[in-house]
Amino acid sequence: MRELNVAVIGCGYWGPNLIRNFAEHKLTTVKYVVDLIPERLQKLSRRYPSTKFISDYELVLNDPAVDAVVIATPVQTHYPLARKALLAGKHVLVEKPMCMNSAECLDLIALAAEHKLVLMVDHTFVYNGAVRRIKQAIEGGQLGEVLYFDSVRINLGLIQNDVNVIWDLAPHDLSIMDYLVGKEPTMVHASGVSLVAGKQEELAYLSLRFDDKFIANFHVSWLSPVKIRRILVGGTQKMVVYDDLEATEKIKIYDKGVMVSTEGTEEDKYKTLVEYRVGDMLAPAYDLAEALRVEVDHFADCIINGTKPLSSGEAGLRVVKILEAANASLLSGKPELISVNEHEAAVRA
Amino acid sequence: MRELNVAVIGCGYWGPNLIRNFAEHKLTTVKYVVDLIPERLQKLSRRYPSTKFISDYELVLNDPAVDAVVIATPVQTHYPLARKALLAGKHVLVEKPMCMNSAECLDLIALAAEHKLVLMVDHTFVYNGAVRRIKQAIEGGQLGEVLYFDSVRINLGLIQNDVNVIWDLAPHDLSIMDYLVGKEPTMVHASGVSLVAGKQEELAYLSLRFDDKFIANFHVSWLSPVKIRRILVGGTQKMVVYDDLEATEKIKIYDKGVMVSTEGTEEDKYKTLVEYRVGDMLAPAYDLAEALRVEVDHFADCIINGTKPLSSGEAGLRVVKILEAANASLLSGKPELISVNEHEAAVRA
Amino acid sequence: MRELNVAVIGCGYWGPNLIRNFAEHKLTTVKYVVDLIPERLQKLSRRYPSTKFISDYELVLNDPAVDAVVIATPVQTHYPLARKALLAGKHVLVEKPMCMNSAECLDLIALAAEHKLVLMVDHTFVYNGAVRRIKQAIEGGQLGEVLYFDSVRINLGLIQNDVNVIWDLAPHDLSIMDYLVGKEPTMVHASGVSLVAGKQEELAYLSLRFDDKFIANFHVSWLSPVKIRRILVGGTQKMVVYDDLEATEKIKIYDKGVMVSTEGTEEDKYKTLVEYRVGDMLAPAYDLAEALRVEVDHFADCIINGTKPLSSGEAGLRVVKILEAANASLLSGKPELISVNEHEAAVRA
Amino acid sequence: MRELNVAVIGCGYWGPNLIRNFAEHKLTTVKYVVDLIPERLQKLSRRYPSTKFISDYELVLNDPAVDAVVIATPVQTHYPLARKALLAGKHVLVEKPMCMNSAECLDLIALAAEHKLVLMVDHTFVYNGAVRRIKQAIEGGQLGEVLYFDSVRINLGLIQNDVNVIWDLAPHDLSIMDYLVGKEPTMVHASGVSLVAGKQEELAYLSLRFDDKFIANFHVSWLSPVKIRRILVGGTQKMVVYDDLEATEKIKIYDKGVMVSTEGTEEDKYKTLVEYRVGDMLAPAYDLAEALRVEVDHFADCIINGTKPLSSGEAGLRVVKILEAANASLLSGKPELISVNEHEAAVRA
Repeated sequence: MRELNVAVIGCGYWGPNLIRNFAEHKLTTVKYVVDLIPERLQKLSRRYPSTKFISDYELVLNDPAVDAVVIATPVQTHYPLARKALLAGKHVLVEKPMCMNSAECLDLIALAAEHKLVLMVDHTFVYNGAVRRIKQAIEGGQLGEVLYFDSVRINLGLIQNDVNVIWDLAPHDLSIMDYLVGKEPTMVHASGVSLVAGKQEELAYLSLRFDDKFIANFHVSWLSPVKIRRILVGGTQKMVVYDDLEATEKIKIYDKGVMVSTEGTEEDKYKTLVEYRVGDMLAPAYDLAEALRVEVDHFADCIINGTKPLSSGEAGLRVVKILEAANASLLSGKPELISVNEHEAAVRA
Repeated sequence: MRELNVAVIGCGYWGPNLIRNFAEHKLTTVKYVVDLIPERLQKLSRRYPSTKFISDYELVLNDPAVDAVVIATPVQTHYPLARKALLAGKHVLVEKPMCMNSAECLDLIALAAEHKLVLMVDHTFVYNGAVRRIKQAIEGGQLGEVLYFDSVRINLGLIQNDVNVIWDLAPHDLSIMDYLVGKEPTMVHASGVSLVAGKQEELAYLSLRFDDKFIANFHVSWLSPVKIRRILVGGTQKMVVYDDLEATEKIKIYDKGVMVSTEGTEEDKYKTLVEYRVGDMLAPAYDLAEALRVEVDHFADCIINGTKPLSSGEAGLRVVKILEAANASLLSGKPELISVNEHEAAVRA
Repeated sequence: MRELNVAVIGCGYWGPNLIRNFAEHKLTTVKYVVDLIPERLQKLSRRYPSTKFISDYELVLNDPAVDAVVIATPVQTHYPLARKALLAGKHVLVEKPMCMNSAECLDLIALAAEHKLVLMVDHTFVYNGAVRRIKQAIEGGQLGEVLYFDSVRINLGLIQNDVNVIWDLAPHDLSIMDYLVGKEPTMVHASGVSLVAGKQEELAYLSLRFDDKFIANFHVSWLSPVKIRRILVGGTQKMVVYDDLEATEKIKIYDKGVMVSTEGTEEDKYKTLVEYRVGDMLAPAYDLAEALRVEVDHFADCIINGTKPLSSGEAGLRVVKILEAANASLLSGKPELISVNEHEAAVRA
Repeated sequence: MRELNVAVIGCGYWGPNLIRNFAEHKLTTVKYVVDLIPERLQKLSRRYPSTKFISDYELVLNDPAVDAVVIATPVQTHYPLARKALLAGKHVLVEKPMCMNSAECLDLIALAAEHKLVLMVDHTFVYNGAVRRIKQAIEGGQLGEVLYFDSVRINLGLIQNDVNVIWDLAPHDLSIMDYLVGKEPTMVHASGVSLVAGKQEELAYLSLRFDDKFIANFHVSWLSPVKIRRILVGGTQKMVVYDDLEATEKIKIYDKGVMVSTEGTEEDKYKTLVEYRVGDMLAPAYDLAEALRVEVDHFADCIINGTKPLSSGEAGLRVVKILEAANASLLSGKPELISVNEHEAAVRA
């Protein structure tokens, strides 16, 4: 079959990784790279002699040979750029977070459905071998019922001007949680701090509540002296630690747990029937392929077969709804509900 | 000078450590150990032949030779036992958390003041060499303005029957924060999860807000597969990591920071003037003496000189007020105010 | 059955641990503790009211009620003290290293055999749960053929006056290797350094060779700024890391290896047929019982049933022969043979 | 001034890094890349459009515009390739180890001196910011007298066909030791093991002795389940740990030591006068520039100014002499002398 022609919009920090992966993939060709900053284009152009490096997005939209548009620009521009691409009949892969709010996400989802186009969000971690290995453990029932999700993603810098640390860092962990646990929160509490009055939060905590007793918490920071990227997933049977900074054993599955029996006399029930189980720890091998390569595979596959991607527009929406509620909570100082709005209800129906 | 006669009430988990330290101290003698469980008394009695191991607290209260009572019983009993001791004219050292609520704390504070007795709470960590070394760095201005306090104290077990994990573990970290930062929060948000419906939370998060932009967050758990005891204190100049599980270098002071200048043109101000400073890291030596020995020293010293202890009843009250608000927040699902009640205002006045 | 009466000789650094374990064991009673330093005896006597604390070893030898003597004195005195005990008809447990040279070891082995007494060396680590778990993996064939043993046991101090760091620290690792691998070296090379001219080495390396290609190396030091206690055991199938300083996961079994096939054309044989296998890592649970308690169990069991202990006099001899050759190598600067002397040949025959 | 024209010979594993650094340097241009394998040339040629990718080394030698030749081929070819380059009047940077034996090294040194050309060995680590920071601490006298050097560089693979693990890995550590300590060993003992009979050692230990009591030891392996790259440098005042796998704090300087006083009475002298000093640990910041970039800077500077490089032919020779003796020791099973041969004496004179 013929190769898919792709245009990558934005070649700042993340764009070059997308370009490299689309360029090296056997099913895809990077026909255009678009950016408004000439130096960026110039720097990359020597490496990809058969790609056109341009500043005019319209050329991409008007070229019928372009199958898909990959958007790696600042989040404020995701919606207008993606909208135009869908209206021009192009499949879309868009950076996370998907849009600035859920209304924008819903509109893109509806457009993609209407035009039968693939709309995918670059939730890179759901294509990561270690994360997929954890998913396998959860789906295989090894963890039992999942009780909690705890994530810490902290480091010094890089402070951003346009979004707060939640919008910058939490989408990684929210998309991992969404993929692994498959539950949608009903309420979000956020708190944070900013060095500069009136500016974006540089350190923040998210606390998510759900319909059942499951809880998820997130610590994100640009102001930590040490770098930590660690997720705990606790189940009734086993518990997982995912440390993304480990060179090799990123996943550790602990055969540890607390067993609470409901038998026993009334008065001593709880105290005497709590038992700790400390068994083996397994650090399983996992697929070491670059997540972005797996993701490009999947995007091409979805386009060719007309299937819905794992990190669909709906997944992007679920993450944006949490981010929206988090911002609301930062303002109000209270937990904020994640409501299902009418438009969304319509889309879901 | 003559030795101080001490009675230790409760010799379960922590009591034996108190007994050992009071017995080995040159200024104190353990005259009585009181417990309702005969096996506990019997087990310890051979080691301390000159101490009386009894089950009747009244004997202690009625013995004029007893100078001080040390209370290491379940938290529900702290108030009645401490109250009786103060009324009998004994100085009191009480386990943390000090009482079940702030009203009880206030009553004990008032009683101690009235009878000119020492009332001290066993906030052991404020006598720990590593914590005192951090205090020295903060007081010396090395950290600059303190921006945030982040604490993680998680492990598998030991699940308690009578209090939730916040009341069990957070007093350690709350007393460290109270000592190091010297600020009182105005609002508390807590969320948590319990394996057993209707039972105490075994995993919880606390988020504290203050009058200024400083924030403090706490993660406590009996349900973690890995043991972590780590505190981050971030300042505008330097940042500290205190890892209590490190064998030797428990404190690391990072000469790292973010500098945001307010100069510059309006539009590029923020982006261009953020600078990262990455300098040396220092792991300073600190006093390795057992914290409890330092604390016994201090208690004896306060009794002899009639001075107020570092971990005074007021410090105990400040911690209990946060715990109280945390429990209220767990119930309401919202942040709860820490109010200054009338009685307390009176005590403070 | 009746309890075994034990006398512990020497209550300096390690003796109190032996006393505690023999005192707490259901099958043994500590009838005597012998030491020449009155302060040591006095310090312990309050804790063990039914034990006699004395300075005259002859009283022990002459008391027919004493079944066994446990020797925890400086190594120079092991031989004379153990010899007297065996001649007096007492079973013997002696600290490591067993004696100052192999001739002394051989004499004790012969005496014990002649009088049908148990002679056991306190190679504590062979009773350690983690070490036994590794043994199980090796015996189960999981590691394949064992290729190498690498040990690092370094720290700052405690510098000893009477023996060099090899005699102080290496017996731990040599006894572990002897137990796990069951091979005797044929040659030893040692090198070391001493801060003080003419004094004992404080830092040393041992390199052991065997009849086959298996090799074992040891790094011991009192002069390291960091504490490391780590053993690697490499097999053709799996490889083990044993880190004694890990709080919980002390053993890690790596399903990693190099496969070299002997097929292929002559010229490309080696290069193309090396394959790396990187599979799961398992940190197995193991028995957490105190090694010394297991060892006391075993000593009592050997006495009662007349069986040979795991850490027999012969095991003690094998370790001392390596230490002897190491000292010879330090002097000569060359590898030294471990020879089978006539006396030993006789004992073995 | 005009740019230096460079030819890089060999673009296998390390060559591309050299090409990138010479291509990006403002003072140098990569005029030729030479390799016998067409695929390698083709793969790189698109990235460097102005460089000639060829297979004929003679073209380089005959081009008077070429100033310097950079040799990154298998070690067996270093000597003939470098010799030809020097005879053709080109400056030479050659991969480590410099040659197959010291006679070859001496010949190249003599040739370079005769033709007044720069001869430099790619001892990359001596241009590494962390290593240079340690050098600064040693030269500043902070460590006191340097007592020992201990190095561990182990990992799984990549097994080489043409040289043993000592020749492959130890040059890194030997060149670091040579640079930091500035002492030449007098004797080398090596032991090792090979999975395949008659093949190269895949795991080995080196033990170096010097004129004074300083000692240096090296553990290198392709057969370890865990990756370790750690050097300890112990001094009488302070001790350094250099862990190359740490993401940020690679150097730790411990204010730890042992003090042995020579005063005191004769009998108690040693025991009572050993004192341990445990002070602060400092992880100093260091230059994060890529070592290879610093090295290219230095090479260009030496050519322009006619100065001798830090990693000169003589430094390369010192490392090769140790490797030579190590191979001899592997064969003989004994420590081998490092002798100063006549040729070398002549060169030195």
